[in-house]
This record gives sequence, structure tokens and C-alpha cells, in this order.
Amino acid sequence: MSKKIASARISAESSALLKELNDSLPFDKALYREDIRGSLAHARMLKEQGIISAEDYEAIEKGLRQVLEEIESGAFSLDGGDEDIHMAVERRLTEIVGDAGKRLHTARSRNDQVAVDFRMYVLRHDLQIAALLRKLITTLLERAEEHAETLLPGMTHLQHAQPTNLGYHLMAYASMFRRDLERFLDSYERNNLSPLGCAALAGTPHPVDRQMTAKELGFRAPTLNCLDSVSDRDFALEILFNIATMMMHISRLSEELILWSTSEFGFVRLSDKHATGSSIMPQKKNPDIPELLRGKTGRAYGNLVSLLTVMKGLPLAYNKDTQEDKEGVFDSVHTAELSLRVLREMIDEMSVDREAMERACMRGHLTATDLADWLVREAGLPFRDAYHIVGNVVNRAEELGKDISQMTPEELAEVDARIAPEACTLLDNRASMNARASEGGTATVRTREQIGQMREWLEGLELRP
Amino acid sequence: MSKKIASARISAESSALLKELNDSLPFDKALYREDIRGSLAHARMLKEQGIISAEDYEAIEKGLRQVLEEIESGAFSLDGGDEDIHMAVERRLTEIVGDAGKRLHTARSRNDQVAVDFRMYVLRHDLQIAALLRKLITTLLERAEEHAETLLPGMTHLQHAQPTNLGYHLMAYASMFRRDLERFLDSYERNNLSPLGCAALAGTPHPVDRQMTAKELGFRAPTLNCLDSVSDRDFALEILFNIATMMMHISRLSEELILWSTSEFGFVRLSDKHATGSSIMPQKKNPDIPELLRGKTGRAYGNLVSLLTVMKGLPLAYNKDTQEDKEGVFDSVHTAELSLRVLREMIDEMSVDREAMERACMRGHLTATDLADWLVREAGLPFRDAYHIVGNVVNRAEELGKDISQMTPEELAEVDARIAPEACTLLDNRASMNARASEGGTATVRTREQIGQMREWLEGLELRP
Amino acid sequence: MSKKIASARISAESSALLKELNDSLPFDKALYREDIRGSLAHARMLKEQGIISAEDYEAIEKGLRQVLEEIESGAFSLDGGDEDIHMAVERRLTEIVGDAGKRLHTARSRNDQVAVDFRMYVLRHDLQIAALLRKLITTLLERAEEHAETLLPGMTHLQHAQPTNLGYHLMAYASMFRRDLERFLDSYERNNLSPLGCAALAGTPHPVDRQMTAKELGFRAPTLNCLDSVSDRDFALEILFNIATMMMHISRLSEELILWSTSEFGFVRLSDKHATGSSIMPQKKNPDIPELLRGKTGRAYGNLVSLLTVMKGLPLAYNKDTQEDKEGVFDSVHTAELSLRVLREMIDEMSVDREAMERACMRGHLTATDLADWLVREAGLPFRDAYHIVGNVVNRAEELGKDISQMTPEELAEVDARIAPEACTLLDNRASMNARASEGGTATVRTREQIGQMREWLEGLELRP
Amino acid sequence: MSKKIASARISAESSALLKELNDSLPFDKALYREDIRGSLAHARMLKEQGIISAEDYEAIEKGLRQVLEEIESGAFSLDGGDEDIHMAVERRLTEIVGDAGKRLHTARSRNDQVAVDFRMYVLRHDLQIAALLRKLITTLLERAEEHAETLLPGMTHLQHAQPTNLGYHLMAYASMFRRDLERFLDSYERNNLSPLGCAALAGTPHPVDRQMTAKELGFRAPTLNCLDSVSDRDFALEILFNIATMMMHISRLSEELILWSTSEFGFVRLSDKHATGSSIMPQKKNPDIPELLRGKTGRAYGNLVSLLTVMKGLPLAYNKDTQEDKEGVFDSVHTAELSLRVLREMIDEMSVDREAMERACMRGHLTATDLADWLVREAGLPFRDAYHIVGNVVNRAEELGKDISQMTPEELAEVDARIAPEACTLLDNRASMNARASEGGTATVRTREQIGQMREWLEGLELRP
Repeated sequence: MSKKIASARISAESSALLKELNDSLPFDKALYREDIRGSLAHARMLKEQGIISAEDYEAIEKGLRQVLEEIESGAFSLDGGDEDIHMAVERRLTEIVGDAGKRLHTARSRNDQVAVDFRMYVLRHDLQIAALLRKLITTLLERAEEHAETLLPGMTHLQHAQPTNLGYHLMAYASMFRRDLERFLDSYERNNLSPLGCAALAGTPHPVDRQMTAKELGFRAPTLNCLDSVSDRDFALEILFNIATMMMHISRLSEELILWSTSEFGFVRLSDKHATGSSIMPQKKNPDIPELLRGKTGRAYGNLVSLLTVMKGLPLAYNKDTQEDKEGVFDSVHTAELSLRVLREMIDEMSVDREAMERACMRGHLTATDLADWLVREAGLPFRDAYHIVGNVVNRAEELGKDISQMTPEELAEVDARIAPEACTLLDNRASMNARASEGGTATVRTREQIGQMREWLEGLELRP
Repeated sequence: MSKKIASARISAESSALLKELNDSLPFDKALYREDIRGSLAHARMLKEQGIISAEDYEAIEKGLRQVLEEIESGAFSLDGGDEDIHMAVERRLTEIVGDAGKRLHTARSRNDQVAVDFRMYVLRHDLQIAALLRKLITTLLERAEEHAETLLPGMTHLQHAQPTNLGYHLMAYASMFRRDLERFLDSYERNNLSPLGCAALAGTPHPVDRQMTAKELGFRAPTLNCLDSVSDRDFALEILFNIATMMMHISRLSEELILWSTSEFGFVRLSDKHATGSSIMPQKKNPDIPELLRGKTGRAYGNLVSLLTVMKGLPLAYNKDTQEDKEGVFDSVHTAELSLRVLREMIDEMSVDREAMERACMRGHLTATDLADWLVREAGLPFRDAYHIVGNVVNRAEELGKDISQMTPEELAEVDARIAPEACTLLDNRASMNARASEGGTATVRTREQIGQMREWLEGLELRP
Repeated sequence: MSKKIASARISAESSALLKELNDSLPFDKALYREDIRGSLAHARMLKEQGIISAEDYEAIEKGLRQVLEEIESGAFSLDGGDEDIHMAVERRLTEIVGDAGKRLHTARSRNDQVAVDFRMYVLRHDLQIAALLRKLITTLLERAEEHAETLLPGMTHLQHAQPTNLGYHLMAYASMFRRDLERFLDSYERNNLSPLGCAALAGTPHPVDRQMTAKELGFRAPTLNCLDSVSDRDFALEILFNIATMMMHISRLSEELILWSTSEFGFVRLSDKHATGSSIMPQKKNPDIPELLRGKTGRAYGNLVSLLTVMKGLPLAYNKDTQEDKEGVFDSVHTAELSLRVLREMIDEMSVDREAMERACMRGHLTATDLADWLVREAGLPFRDAYHIVGNVVNRAEELGKDISQMTPEELAEVDARIAPEACTLLDNRASMNARASEGGTATVRTREQIGQMREWLEGLELRP
Repeated sequence: MSKKIASARISAESSALLKELNDSLPFDKALYREDIRGSLAHARMLKEQGIISAEDYEAIEKGLRQVLEEIESGAFSLDGGDEDIHMAVERRLTEIVGDAGKRLHTARSRNDQVAVDFRMYVLRHDLQIAALLRKLITTLLERAEEHAETLLPGMTHLQHAQPTNLGYHLMAYASMFRRDLERFLDSYERNNLSPLGCAALAGTPHPVDRQMTAKELGFRAPTLNCLDSVSDRDFALEILFNIATMMMHISRLSEELILWSTSEFGFVRLSDKHATGSSIMPQKKNPDIPELLRGKTGRAYGNLVSLLTVMKGLPLAYNKDTQEDKEGVFDSVHTAELSLRVLREMIDEMSVDREAMERACMRGHLTATDLADWLVREAGLPFRDAYHIVGNVVNRAEELGKDISQMTPEELAEVDARIAPEACTLLDNRASMNARASEGGTATVRTREQIGQMREWLEGLELRP
């Protein structure tokens, strides 16, 4: 609480502890650009509406540009004792331009000022994260194209299940990140409304033009109801949820990269740029980056829970609790953007061990389902019966110490006479992979089709400003 | 685990404990309609594509309709020992139609079957909740219209701030619920894609037609990538988040209704239908319903955290962990729908004490800002200076034991000579409320405008199916 | 809402929706034993204090025992329309014994009745979970003893790090579960205080003897302050947190069992009792149980978040929100107890592939640190310098396509002349494992020491009733 | 990752993004004291065990003390490019003392170094928070004593229920904070074990003496199993949960202070030091401090969820994900300590409006239960019947526009003839408050007894270091 504001009704010095608890400048200084931009639009509108004079406007406009410059050059430090970024900017403005600076706060309250600043910040990062997701997807498409024929054991329950290809696998992640991207854009659209001009909670008797400031600041329109506008933090919850879900997707990809980097799997090798050693074990090369990305899911979830908790049960309109809305959002946004950059670089530069992946397809009887499907198609068995026969074939293969794909026609026929020699060709892993050619399936031709469709969508995507 | 499925490779009896841990029938029986509907579409497609014979199809089709009837009539109990709803339906089908029933599972896996069933359930409830929100908003609009002139002390920090009206206040909640509604519809649109035909993880060698089943089941299109489709639970996370945010809004309204029902506030009186007594204190009338609604925010948040936790770090594709996706969604959906119904009824039937609200406006110097604004507009003072003068006026009023609106022109001029007699008229609460006539403001005319705009939007809203 | 209770002040019929929202019988019937036990103690105290007559007491006592019998035999169904378990029991009691039944509620409110019932339930399960943890630890100790010499590649970052043994690894989990057990006991001790006799919020004018009922119900003492006692749910939060942390430990062990069951690792084989097959892939054997246990972490976390959310910001004393405290606790308790039983059985019956574990120790240059330590000890190098030399040795081994443990003295000396031939013996995995003989280290002798100490602690453990 | 460490196996420059993601110095510099203290103990032990020479030890000891001085004086800045605090200290040490500095890392890994530093930090703050809780409770006891006769309407469901006193009400909060304090101490005891000497994951071949370092650093003993010790973060989860629960209690008290500060309640007036004004409404005095305290519950919950999420499903032993353990703990600890200081000061300095509280007791028929109890005791009615009679009395009072305590004997007898004139005296609020004299009840004499018992406990409390 700045002494100035308090002095109208409150005489005592603020408690030092109160100041530490209350001041938000240490974190909300991140909003300085938005704050000055919002004030410029407000001032221009005040002038256009005849609420302040042209002279005052010019002084304010020039003064605000100077404050911006001083902040960016470091000449005006934001580590002073001001309560928050809004007071800091206003105080410096008034130092520069005198009384005109005091007129800037006409027809505005800190409630709508904070609301518009924070909303502009969130909307800007909705778009920035979307742009980073587009880059990540582009990289995934490139690598998927490169590996649309690279055999990979598809797994369920972390057990070998059916042969797939690496490109197909990467397209699953591209699909997740596409949904993420769409969520950020949807949230941007829904919340792209200006609360500026709502004042404390009820609007203002001054003849403000909210359409004008909304347009100038790049919003679609003004918000409908001022009381809601100053207490609404849905836009912040949405970005927190969208980041949490995106980090969950990243945690899944990270988990796989960690597994694939083990000496047991050995499917990929991260670039040395993305790995670290051990302080005590000289032979180690650790996948620190995917581990950190997986770990950072924690803070993304935590920040979401924090704000949901803060908002629970708050009466209208503004309550000071809401000041707790920013740090978590700043942290999640920073985490999300950094994670996307690192992940893209890591995917781009990791090297893939095609042979190891192909070798792994020889474990786990991956083509067992193909045999079952053949028995259905060619021998006319119900699936459930075919399933049991193949179960017996697998048991026999295990006794022989072989993978099912290595069994001879004779060995197969011995288990069940209905298995004809031509069924054997189905047991080849690549043939099996390419046989799964249904829409959305793993066959190389279908994988390439998916890449093409995703690329088309990506090219049609318009990311505003 | 049904013994039948396990028998291909696993010989021992399932542990009884495993069965208790593993079986999902006790809760996923809620999906029986979706399961049968999905199977009907799948079977028809299999026939059209020549994968099963017309005879088999007819048997399956007739059989499935019988199973549906038996479930709905109670003739086939879902409390038996089957592992899950899918196995229960298939087992009963096979009992009825024999081998044809076994052919239903051709070109399908439990992975895509579960995925399509659960997605249909979630999409259906996205729309159902949206429809309930529409009803709630309609009721809020009616009551807002009724009370667009009912004075209410607007609060920030739970302190009297400026005079508003009850209609305006209710419109803030209507605005929140509108965003909620839009979120459910966005989520519906984004996720309205069919995973059916994706099989276990990689598609199928059978010539399935996913476009056909997608269309038949009301989906926009099939999903792009099968691997993603069987492990994607974003649609479930979205409904959980949307419900959590909506319950947060409900908790805020509930908090206010609880406060307004106290003898201290006394602004509203809940219908006796929505209140309860005490087992020991005969005089009590407790606002149990809003308290319960506020409390139910807890489970909505918890269910969201649960599924986020489950999904963290899961490798592709299906893992059994994902079975934990349903109970929380069922619980949140039930909570959301019941809460919306109860809340609408409560808002509809509560009685408002206009006099108490108006009396309350005489406390707290609500019109202090109006005087400050007058000093800016008419006496040409910078806002910050006007603010200080009014601070002194308020202090003087307190000394006199009056509200600022009760001060005489003389008393005002004594504090500062620039306060002219005409400023006095501004201090009337209703005048002050109607003076806040900026766009989105509380003035009755503006409140009515907001109601009109919201009604227009509501009328333009198309809720599919 | 029971019509009876409401009738003193509230005339209308309860809304059907209210009833659905409000009634807790569907879940709080789980408390029937505690409710009857608490009422028996209360009734006896009322008689001893002369508040009710001996005749009334006898009728109540006999009646309550009959109600208990009827519930357990199914003669009295708890699926009726009563509001909660407390009303159901009281209603049935009054049917059986008439007016005497009505006297049971003297000097008691539903607030303290609920508080004591729920607390007894939680305390009972604190002990029950502790007892199940003791059994699990016992099984872990047995298997650790069996495998104190079984080589296992110790990992950090999921990369091979140093040779350890399986017994040592299991002892890490035994240590976690020991802390869990201690937390449940601590929580039991702290919360073992009786709220009975606190009435609605302020105590009672009746001459109740809270010491007597506390003692009879097995509590350490009565609680200090009645207002706190009826609104305190710390005991419930504690069991939810303790379960969440325990499930986190279980999720870590489950993750390792899933990894160790892959064909890539192949370290363990779960009993067929604990694995399941696939509906479409006949060759699959899936580790469903550890996957489910890992997934159930989600609900344990969610239930904790739910109750924390419910309690946030509630004014004193009782608010209806608190009714939301039970379902999550019941669910977490059920999950915890079932999980512990299943996990113990699974650990007990899984088979270990010693050879696979030993073979795996030949990958990853596990003994590199030993060479570095030797260079420090015997060649007098600073650790940081030794570390770099060994880095070069590892690079050389990779060029030779060998594990460091397979290098000859000549090959080693070529990298750095200070590596004497006797250093070679250190590179053997078992020798290396046994060399880590510091307190708490992996050497077999130290592993056995840990087992012994843990067993001693276990034997000294007294678990009350 | 410092270039130095990585160079043994990893040749490329670290990615700049990796560095930003990976480096923990910006936050773990908070551990510098613990790091140097731990290193001093480790070095002394190395010397005593003959692992390093006396000369090296002296150099290290002197060097570390110099590093400490340099950090505290600002001569050595912790904003450099080091990876973490451990590397920063070691690098500076080696600059000062040369090769001896490199010997410090003998028989130690960063894993056990981090574990012991972080644990010392957490244990220290367990005690520090406990000490602050003791101070808060002391203040609560003082104010409770002052107000043991101050009438206050006790509420349930935020509805007037029975007359209590403010001292009794404050004792409910003292009871909550006592449980909090006990939880911090329990956690301190359970986790007061030293992980130092556990090395990377398996112990060390060097003859370290873990008993010696444990004792020197103030731990009860060394931990049992090294593998567990380097990956255990239970101590961090416990402090996060204990803080979350404590903040929940604080949020409840804050909610009441906010309510009591409204013009509707008007029970208390916060010191001007703890209130703030509005930027636009000159008459406002806002309870910012309790609002902020209530809001900070959000981050306490979120930090707990974050770490629970991070730990879920992590295989043994150390994974880089765990680096995410610290920021949330630092933030929760800072929040907790600041909140306790502020809350204590606010409770100490707030002024109580005794008359307003007493006046409020005349609303809501607070003594209705007393009349019911009298009918049971003196007229021999079953409670349920008495309850109904009093319901009628209350209805009659409402018709008369009176509180029940203002009814005449005649008016009472008219409702039910069994209500004798002497029952009237019971309807006085103070008499009623003092009549609730059961153990733990609100009667002034009982309130004073509770204060005495709590004071006795507080005096017996020993808070280590």
C-alpha cells in the first residue's frame, strides 16, 4: 500500500510486514509494457471524449513514452518501494509531467487497470505459445517424414504389441500438440474482450468510449458487464489449464525419450547438448532435459490448483485475494515457452538407432494379431476362436525359443492344421506394419497421409498478430 | 479380468484381490447405452464392407437390441461378475446369438471400443450441461429484469463501495455462466471425432470404413492418428476443467447467497424448500443448499487433479492406469448437472428484500466517488486531489455520525469551499447508480441493455442435437 | 433433509433436488457401527449422570443392539429415504423402543455425533492401514533377505550407475513404507481425542461426563474446545495426505515393476494371478496390477485436494460444506487397503530372473566410479582429476566395444599409466557391490544389517487394537 | 550442467536453453549456509578417518569459511553462471585453496550433498515455524483471556445459533494452531536423520563415518538405506502439507475477520497498519491483510500438489525431476512464516467492539436451545418433543417482532402451558452462555480453564535449537 493512497482515510504507517505481504511490484513489474500501453489508449480516449485537455494528453503521452524508455534502459529501476507496477509508472509519470499525470487516473480504477493489463499479457502469451507449438509440430512432421518407414515396436502396457513405425508414433504427439494449439487459440478468441473503462466495479459517470480503447488495444470488443469484468479470472485459469494439459503431453513424450535412452531400449541418443554427466560417475550420460520437462509438469499442475483455490467462494467484486493470480501464471507461461523451445531442439537433434528399433521388433511376437486376423479372414473363424489358436502358437514359439515371426510353416501347422503356409508371410514385421492400412493406421502410406493432412492444417493456420 | 480373455497365455486363476482392483463394471456400466450404440454402428459397417455376412449382422443387430432391452428392464443385471461393461454386453450377446456374437469383435479392440464409448458419453454431457446452463441463464435474466432498479450496495473487499442494482449484480453471474457454456461447446466441437476403428493402437488390416461409423454415431469425422486416439483423454480433462471452473463460479454465487441470508445482511430469503433446520436448535433455518454447492467445488477440483495425475508421464499407447479416467468424470458430471438444476430452482424461488438492500446503501458513504468525480469534472481538479478532499468529507461525516449522502450543503462546504450546493444531488444513491451509465455500467438503462444483449445471444444459440 | 427435523420452522416440502443433493445416507451408512457404538456410550453416560432414567437406558441399549443386528443381517435396510445414518438409526430405534429413543439425543447434537463417528472411523483405519503396512514390510524383508546377493544394476536417471543388489533395492521401499507406517501412527496419536459431548458448538448445560465417554470409546481424552471440535477435520486431511504419500511410494515401486516386466529389462515375471491378457493380441501378458496401482495415485491426490478445497475459508463452526468430507476419505481408505493387500501378494509371488539382472550389470560401465575411487586412494589424485581419467577409460572401452569390467590391465595402462594391474580386480561387479560397505551401503553385509535393524523395529512395534 | 562436469563424456557445448532449464543456482542459492555447513562436517570426518590429510582439511576448512564470508558480504556473487550452489561453492573454494578443494568431493556425490542440504533447510524451518506458531498462540491466549466474558453470537451455517464468548471463539483457533505446531514437531522428529555419506545411490568404498557427520550436523542418526536416502523427499512433502493445513486454518480465521470487519457485522476494527484504501473510492478501508492471507492458501495448496505430482511414478534412485522439489518449498516456507508474523500482529492490534457483539446476540433467538433443554430437564419431555414446542415459541416471537429472549412469561405460557415463569431467566444470553459449562464448553469459567490448560502445554513445550 503506497502511503499516498492510504492517506485519505488511514493515518498510521503501514506495517512493514503488511508491505512485504502486500506489495506486488517484485512480480507484477513483468506487466510494465501492458500497463503503459493501456494507459496510452486510456489517455487518448480521455482526450477524444473531452475528459482531459489536449495539452494534458500530450504531456501524458510523451511522459509515458519516456517512462517506457527509462524502464527499458534501466534508468528507472523497478526495484524501488512502490506498491505495484501501476503506482510505479504513475508516480514516475507525475514526477516527469506534474499535474497532468494525476489526470490519467480519471474514469479508471486500479481494478480495471489491473484487469486489462493482465488480460493483455495472457492473450499475448496464448498466441506466443501457439506459435511455439506450430514450430514444434513442424519439427515433428519433418522427423515423422524421415521415419515413416522406420520400424518400431508399438506397445501397450509397455509390452510389445504390434509393429508400427516411428513416424506414426511421432504423429501421435503431433496430434496432441495440435489439440493444445487449438485450445490456446480458442481461449484467445473467447477472452479477447476489453475490461478497460469498467472502473472499480460499476462503470463510471464519465463519458468514456470503451469501444475506442478496446479497438486500439487489439481487443475484439468491450466486455458486457463491468462487475464481472473486474473479478473475472477465467482467462488466467484457461491458460493455466491449457499449459497443464500441454505439459502432461510433454511429460509423456519425455517419459518415452527417457526409456528410449536407456541401455535396455537404446532406440535414441540425445544430442550431447541435451545431456549431462554425473559428478561422481564418469561413465554417465543422463537425459536431464526430458527428466526436467517431465518434472515441470508438477509446477504446471500446482499453479492451476493454486488459482482455482484462490477463486473458490470469493464474493463479488474485487477482493485482494485475486492479487495471487499472477505469479503462477507468469511461472507457467515461462515454463511452457521454455519447455517448447527445448523440446523442439531436442527432437530436432536426437539421433535415432533404426537398427535397434528394428531388432526390438523381433521380440514379443508382434505379429500374433495378424495371424489371428488371417484366421478370421481366410479360415472363417470367429475372432475369439482365432485368438485362442494364436495363443497356442505363441506358447509353442516360446517353447522353441523363437519369435513367432521366425516359425516355419511346419511348426505353425503343427499347432493348428488350419494355418496354411501363405499365412507365414504375414508374420514379417514390415509386412504387418504396412498391412494396418485402415484410415489413421500405421502403414507407411497412411502415416504419410496423416503427415500431409497435418501439414495442410498447419499451413492454413492463421496466428494473429 | 475375465477368465476367458486371460486364457490364451495366462493359466492361473486371477487373484481375487486383482479382480476387485481390476474390474470396472461397478462403474462403467454407466456406459451401456454408448457401448451398444457403438457396437451397432461397428456391426453395420462390418457388413457393408463385407467383413461379416448379412446373416451375422442381422443376428448381432437383433441381439444387441435385446441386450439393451434386458438391461433397461432389469432382466439382465449388470451386477454380475463380468470384468467390464464391454465384456458383459458381449457375453450376453453371445449367449443370445451364438457364434455371430463372437464376430462382432472383428477389426476392433477394447482400446478403441472404450475410447469411443467414453467419448460419446462425455460429448453428450458437454451438450447436456450446456443446455442446463442455458436454462440457468434464462432464469438469471428474468430475475435481473425484475430487479434492474433494486438498489444494492456494490462491494469490493466485502466493504460497501458504490451503489449498484441487483439486476446488474445477477448479470455478472450470467456473464460467467455464458463463458462456461461457451467452453463446453468449444470442447464439444474440438473433440467431436471418432476413434472407432483404431483397434488396439495401429489400425487394422481389415478394410474398415471409419467415415461411415463416425457419421452414424454423430461425429464430425474420424480422428487422424490411431495411436493417439486410443490414449487421448483430453476430452475428459476438458470436461473436468470446465466443470471445475463452473463450480468455482457457483461457489462464488453460493457464498453471496449465504452471506445475504445472514441476519446481518438479510438481503434474501431462500425458499423453505431449499433450507433445513437444526437437530438441536429449533430456531435455525440454514442455507444448506448453497453451502453444499460451495462444498461440491472440492470434488470438482479433486477429480480434475486425479485425472491430470493419472495421465502424467504415461508412455504410449494404452496403459491400464487410464481405467482410472471414468469415475471422476461420472462424479463431476453428476455433480454439475444436479448443481445447475438446484441452483436454477433456488434463484427462481428465493425472495428478495428490496428494503433491506436499499437501507444498506445508506451505510458506507457509497457516493463518495461521485463527489470526487464531480470535483474533477466541475472544479477541474486532478483526480488525486479530489480524492483527498473527499477523504476529508468522509472523515467529517463519520464525526457527525452520518452517511455522506445525508450531509447538508453547508457541512460539505465547510470541509472544502469548492464543493458547491449542486454537488449534493449527486450524493443520492439512486442518482449515483444511474449516473454510472458508461457501457457495461450499472445504470438501470445499461443493465437492461446487457440483459437484452445476453438474451439475443441466448436466442441465437444452437445446441446440437 | 428429514421432514421431521425441518418441521419446527420450515413448512414447505423439501425440494426433491435438495433431497438428492443433501442426503448422505448413500455413503455415510458406512459409519453405522461407529454411530451405534457412540450412541451406546452416550446413553450409558446419560444414565450414570442421572440425565436419563435407568429404564430408558436399558430400552435404548437393547434397542440399539437390535438395530445393529438388523443392519448386519439385512433386516433393516439402509437404502431407505432417511437423510443420513444418524437419522436412520434413531428412527429405527424409536420405532422399536418408543419415547425412550427420543431421549437419546439429549445433550448431543448431530454436529458432535457426526464428528465422533467419523473420527472413530478414521482412527480405526489409521491402525488398519498401519497393520497392512507391517505385513507388506515383512514380505519385503523376506524377499530382501532372499536377494541380498542378487546383483542388480543400480540406476540414476534410469541409466546404469553402480552395481547393487536386489535386497538392497527392496530395502529402500521398506524404508519408505516404514515412514508411511509411522505417519499413520503419529496421526492416530495426535487425533485420538473425543469430541463427544461438544453438542452443537458450545457445549451443553447438561452435566455430561466427557471423560467417561472418551474412555469408553477408546479415546485418550476429550478434546479441549467444543467449537473447534465440531469443525475440525484435520484428522481426515491427515489420513488423506498419508495415503497420498503412500500411494506415491507405491506408484514408484509399480513403475519399476512395469519396467522390469518389459522384454527390454526382463528382470521379473509377475505371477499369472497378477497379469492379464489382451482382447485382441493373443501374445500379450500385461502388468495390469502395477499399472492400476500407479493409476490409483490419481484418486488419492484428488481426494486430498478435494477436502483441502472444501475447508478453505469456512467460518466457524459447522457448515454444511463439511458433509463433503466423507466420500473422499472412504474412497482413499478403500484404495489404500486394497492396494496394500494386492501389492504384498504381488511382491510375494513374483519371480526374479537373477541371470537377467546379473547380465544387465555388464552394461554401462558400472564400476567406473570404483576405478576413480582407487585412483584417489592409491594414486593420491584429487577426485576431480581421477574422474577425468576414468572418463577417458570409458571412452576407450566404448571404442573397443567392451564394458569397462572387461578391459585388460594393458588396455587400462594405455589410457593412463597410473592405473596399476591390481586396479583391475576392482572392476568386477560383485566385488564392487561388496566394496560399498559404508553404513547404509549396498554391500551384502550392510544390506543384511539393514534387514536386521528393520526387523528389530518391526518386532518392537505395538499396534493398538 | 557445468562444462567441467560434463567434459568426461560429453563433448558439445550445452545448449543455452538447456542451461536455462537446468540451472538451479537462481533458487538453490538459498541453501548456501547449509551447503557450507555440510561440507565442513564432511571434511572434518574425511580427516578423522584418514581419507584426506590434516593439511588438506585445514585448507578446506579455512577456505570454506572464507567462501561463507564472501557470500554474506557480497564479495562472492551468487548470480554467476554456475549450475547450482554446490558447484558455485566448490569452484570458489578451489580458486582459493587449489587442489585441496578438489579433495572435498571424495566419498560424496551431489546426490547426498543435495539431500543433506535440503533436509537441513527443511528441518530448520520446521522448528522456526513451530516457534512462530507458539508466539501466535501466546497472543491468542492473551486476547482470549481479555475477552472470556465478551458475548459473541456463536454461529453454525453462518446463522446465529447459541451465545458464546469471544475468548472461547479464539480458543478454537488456538486449538487448530496447536495441532499445526505438533505436526511440524512430529515431522521434525521423524525426518531428523542424516543422508550424508550415502554418495550417489549405493554408499561408498571409503571408510566414512556417518555417525560422526550426523552428530556434528545435529541429526538424531544416519538414515538406514542409502538408495532410499538420495531419493526420499517425504520430509519436503510433509512440510508442504503441514503448511497447507495451517494456511487453511489461517484462511478460516481470515474469512471471519473479513466478515467481522464489514459494516453489516462490525464486530472488529483492524488497525490502520493492517488496512488499505482504494485508488478511486476515498471512503474505503479494506481488510487487505486477511484477504491476502486467505488468498495465499492457494499457493500453499498448489506447491503441495506440485511436488506430489513430481514424485509420482519416479523409479529409483535420483532423477533430475527431483530438482523441482525446492522452489515450492522455499515459497511455502516464506509464505508460512510471513503469514504467521502478520497474523499475530493483526490479532494483537485489532480492536473489538464489545457492544456490537452483544447487540448481535439479541438477534436469532440464540437461547432457544436452552428452553428446549429446560423442558427436557424440568418438564421431563423427550428432547424431540421439547424441540417442537420451542419451534412454536420461535414462530410466535417472530410474529411479535421480538427475539425470544424478550418474551414475557405470559407470552411463553400461551404457546405451551408447561413453560413456567422461571424458564424465562434462562433466556438471557449471558446466563445461557455461562450455562454451557460442560467440559470444553463456552461458559466463561470453562473458557478460562481451556486457556489455562493451553498455557500449561505451551510452557512445557521444548523447541529444539
